[in-house]
Amino acid sequence: MQPKISGPEFFIGRGGGDGELISFGSGQPDLAPPQEAFDALKEFRDFKYDLVQGSQQLREALAANNPGTKPEEYVITNGASEAIDLALRAIAVPGGRVLLPKPYYYSYPRNVQLAGMIPDYYELIDGKIDIESFKKIIHGARAVVVNSPSNPTGTVQEVEVLKELERVCDEQGIYVLSDEVYKDLIYVRENYRLHGRRVITLDSFSKTYAMCGMRVGYLHTQDTRLVESVVEMKTHTSMNTSIQGQRMALAALATPASYVAHNVDIWRERRDMMYDGMKALGLDLWKPEGAFYVLPAFKDSGRVVHDLYYKHKIITYDGEWFGAPERVRFSYALDVKKIEEGLKRLKTFLESDYRLY
Amino acid sequence: MQPKISGPEFFIGRGGGDGELISFGSGQPDLAPPQEAFDALKEFRDFKYDLVQGSQQLREALAANNPGTKPEEYVITNGASEAIDLALRAIAVPGGRVLLPKPYYYSYPRNVQLAGMIPDYYELIDGKIDIESFKKIIHGARAVVVNSPSNPTGTVQEVEVLKELERVCDEQGIYVLSDEVYKDLIYVRENYRLHGRRVITLDSFSKTYAMCGMRVGYLHTQDTRLVESVVEMKTHTSMNTSIQGQRMALAALATPASYVAHNVDIWRERRDMMYDGMKALGLDLWKPEGAFYVLPAFKDSGRVVHDLYYKHKIITYDGEWFGAPERVRFSYALDVKKIEEGLKRLKTFLESDYRLY
Repeated sequence: MQPKISGPEFFIGRGGGDGELISFGSGQPDLAPPQEAFDALKEFRDFKYDLVQGSQQLREALAANNPGTKPEEYVITNGASEAIDLALRAIAVPGGRVLLPKPYYYSYPRNVQLAGMIPDYYELIDGKIDIESFKKIIHGARAVVVNSPSNPTGTVQEVEVLKELERVCDEQGIYVLSDEVYKDLIYVRENYRLHGRRVITLDSFSKTYAMCGMRVGYLHTQDTRLVESVVEMKTHTSMNTSIQGQRMALAALATPASYVAHNVDIWRERRDMMYDGMKALGLDLWKPEGAFYVLPAFKDSGRVVHDLYYKHKIITYDGEWFGAPERVRFSYALDVKKIEEGLKRLKTFLESDYRLY
Repeated sequence: MQPKISGPEFFIGRGGGDGELISFGSGQPDLAPPQEAFDALKEFRDFKYDLVQGSQQLREALAANNPGTKPEEYVITNGASEAIDLALRAIAVPGGRVLLPKPYYYSYPRNVQLAGMIPDYYELIDGKIDIESFKKIIHGARAVVVNSPSNPTGTVQEVEVLKELERVCDEQGIYVLSDEVYKDLIYVRENYRLHGRRVITLDSFSKTYAMCGMRVGYLHTQDTRLVESVVEMKTHTSMNTSIQGQRMALAALATPASYVAHNVDIWRERRDMMYDGMKALGLDLWKPEGAFYVLPAFKDSGRVVHDLYYKHKIITYDGEWFGAPERVRFSYALDVKKIEEGLKRLKTFLESDYRLY
């Protein structure tokens, strides 16, 4: 009896090592972090607690990189995961409703529940926000989560739509949690950074600098009382983010822009290969505008994920886990040779097992 | 107008640097981590997500170090702070009552509140658990927190008392969160590790190996369903603990026992100096049996902390923050020369300002 694949955690730590297995699963870059990040550890000898809010130097570097922001508006966190957890706990009101995009990053609904609030949803139309229907359902919400570029859809929202969303949320006093962890992996335009009194930006070094395992992220908000409240909680729930991780993040930030630009070229090549390859196989999917995911439609997605893993040695994630039933998420964070082999196996699957569904 | 000293966070990141300031404040070792922990970073090149539960190698090493435990019973966390946060969130029931020792580590009440439960207290008598009165108030509690050796009292509980506590909590189905982060800094006996079906051990590399800033701790419980529930939450709230911190922790665990033994000798020397010095000044305090704190009695403790900081350049923590009104916590995590100078200043304070209180 093959164990049931219950969620993404089934695959965490699998794949990668085994040459036979092709992993379109986990959303983490395979490209290495900048060498400077590792070099920073060579002479590293600090070991004491640092400010719970995050290293002064790192917050200054972030502020310098993001014009219009100040060091005191940042909190450095254990990845964007802790940033969203703390942000939601800080703004939590009993029974508060938090609007999530659908499809969503699989942690969002659970994050909202863990903060004692209630997840609700706004449907994306082909991966895009429909601002008119969005406006109809936001009244009375405590917060809205926006994720552009999106995991798992790979779509990027229109700047005009984001500005309108900013405006209506500000008007109604609704917090906007803007998850911009893929802001640097974007193929269609510069990132538009949401901003305003009620905006909380969630970001990370994980995707831009391939530092997933180091767990360094941050949140930013102009609302310094909210910053205080987040820091007060973090003092009790984890204290400072690991000082050696922060040191690596500082070194990564100082690398030439060519590091990121070079990586985006690689991501674009993979994106094209993945998108064109899947189109050629007759699959129905959106062309990724950012991040590194495609979300093609399949009937019986759970069975697809099961068969792809057990019969064809391909790891994929069920769209169901992201609020996208009858779709399957493929991450293309792996090299073109493996993508090619993966597409070949996918073709075999489509022509054999899948025909009998 | 001198800013009001509102809590420990006022001092985080202060002191240490300034030669003029003597810090009896923050509870972190000044002694360096084992060199091996830093050496481990030299060849470190990993950057991907690892298991949310924590590195397999590190959990195996912990199990090997603690006979009777298994790797799958551990979760590696961002310090013991995250361990207690996750443990409480995992066992939370609405309105659940959690019994804390009083005096308590200052985060406990807030941790309980943040998990949606209600902090309640059992009074320590001269730093010791009074098991008979403890038994009278535990009925119906969801959990009990035990902290031996204790921050801030420096006391170690009697083994017989701990065993009786284990027994009654087990009988009544009450979780015991045993915070043993000072288990290796103990002067009177070997640590007694609490155990049982309902025991959740909270521990850390911060104190034993002077790795506060790295933020590596863990929780242990025989209850593997509880482990699963903690890991499920951590998947959404922070993912794996920083891989480079875990690598350092693994190297630290492998250092010869002489590292810890040598440090305990240093702590004992400081303890004696601090205790004898304060006794000579006529202060009323308990002799520390573990950890690195004394908690002498003072009238008007808030004013004492204020005057010591602003007039005598000594950082201390108000007992009030630990549920110990009319006491002041002094950490002796600093070298004997500084302790000597600190005691000299304290003498001046006692003979000048304090006489006028």
